[in-house]
Amino acid sequence: MQTRLYEFSGTTSDVGGWQVTSSHPIIGDGLVPVAGLDIQPMEGEPPSNAPARAFVLRGIRSNERYIKADERADLVRVQADLGRGDATCASLIPIRKSPAWWALAQDERRAIMEEQSHHIAIGARYLPAIARRLFHCRDLLEPFDFLTWFEFAPEHAGAFDDLLGRLRETHEWSYIDREVELRLVRPPAV
Amino acid sequence: MQTRLYEFSGTTSDVGGWQVTSSHPIIGDGLVPVAGLDIQPMEGEPPSNAPARAFVLRGIRSNERYIKADERADLVRVQADLGRGDATCASLIPIRKSPAWWALAQDERRAIMEEQSHHIAIGARYLPAIARRLFHCRDLLEPFDFLTWFEFAPEHAGAFDDLLGRLRETHEWSYIDREVELRLVRPPAV
Repeated sequence: MQTRLYEFSGTTSDVGGWQVTSSHPIIGDGLVPVAGLDIQPMEGEPPSNAPARAFVLRGIRSNERYIKADERADLVRVQADLGRGDATCASLIPIRKSPAWWALAQDERRAIMEEQSHHIAIGARYLPAIARRLFHCRDLLEPFDFLTWFEFAPEHAGAFDDLLGRLRETHEWSYIDREVELRLVRPPAV
Repeated sequence: MQTRLYEFSGTTSDVGGWQVTSSHPIIGDGLVPVAGLDIQPMEGEPPSNAPARAFVLRGIRSNERYIKADERADLVRVQADLGRGDATCASLIPIRKSPAWWALAQDERRAIMEEQSHHIAIGARYLPAIARRLFHCRDLLEPFDFLTWFEFAPEHAGAFDDLLGRLRETHEWSYIDREVELRLVRPPAV
């Protein structure tokens, strides 16, 4: 069985994969500047020729925490996979939510996230252009609670900015106490 | 900040804490027989005089995944803390749920767990006699998904048997593909 655990390593040299074009803090502290980002499933030993790593963030693919079955069915019908040849732009958004958020009961968090903030519905409007994958890290005792990875073609960069802007205006975002935004590009697939 | 991560170590010798009186599989494989159980927060290095460990299970205290705010308020009003002097009996129940369970959306899991199986309501009937604490381990890539720890006085051992019997009859339990039951005792607190 393939592992669900991944490492996102910021590398000091651009090693031919995802190249980091910008990295800046949105809320709280940023991350150290890096040239590249290497994303690998954590299986076995790291390769001995791995580039120098300025930071390593770990995240795990896990079960859904909020989405309802009908909402998920709607998303699955339209969403795109990662790795599309023309999706040469990406963004990594590590976030941490406040202790006040985590102290809420499940129904309270769901109500803030969706009924008040429409997080799932907002994301759905940008499908299939903006592909998205969520990694959990709070229970790995990492510095962030979530890593969200987005991929899109260059012509959808404006739509992605719009998506981020809408999410950051929500009530849910008032519970976020650290957020960093990395933007990345890679060469088109041959 | 105190860690949320704990180690449950089965020890081959009884070292004066919780003594294991029985350990048997309910669904799937059991655990190797042990004489004692040592429960420690994972902070710093293990002590150099730690007893030989036959197994180590790790679990993390985490946010609530299903309980609603009003249900939680009802529980908090009546539940007891761990560590009561007369709670000299305990049980550790490691369980794993099936891939079919984890593939369900949040509302589907909640409906099976509570609206159909009354898991929270059943547990509430045994408060404050049976104190309970849940540790999560699925996203730590452990062999089990949850470790539940129960403490009670010897005169409530029958009530605890009754609680386990009721839970194991539920529809939720049909999604459990491994379950082990350990029973433990300790000397009364002086």
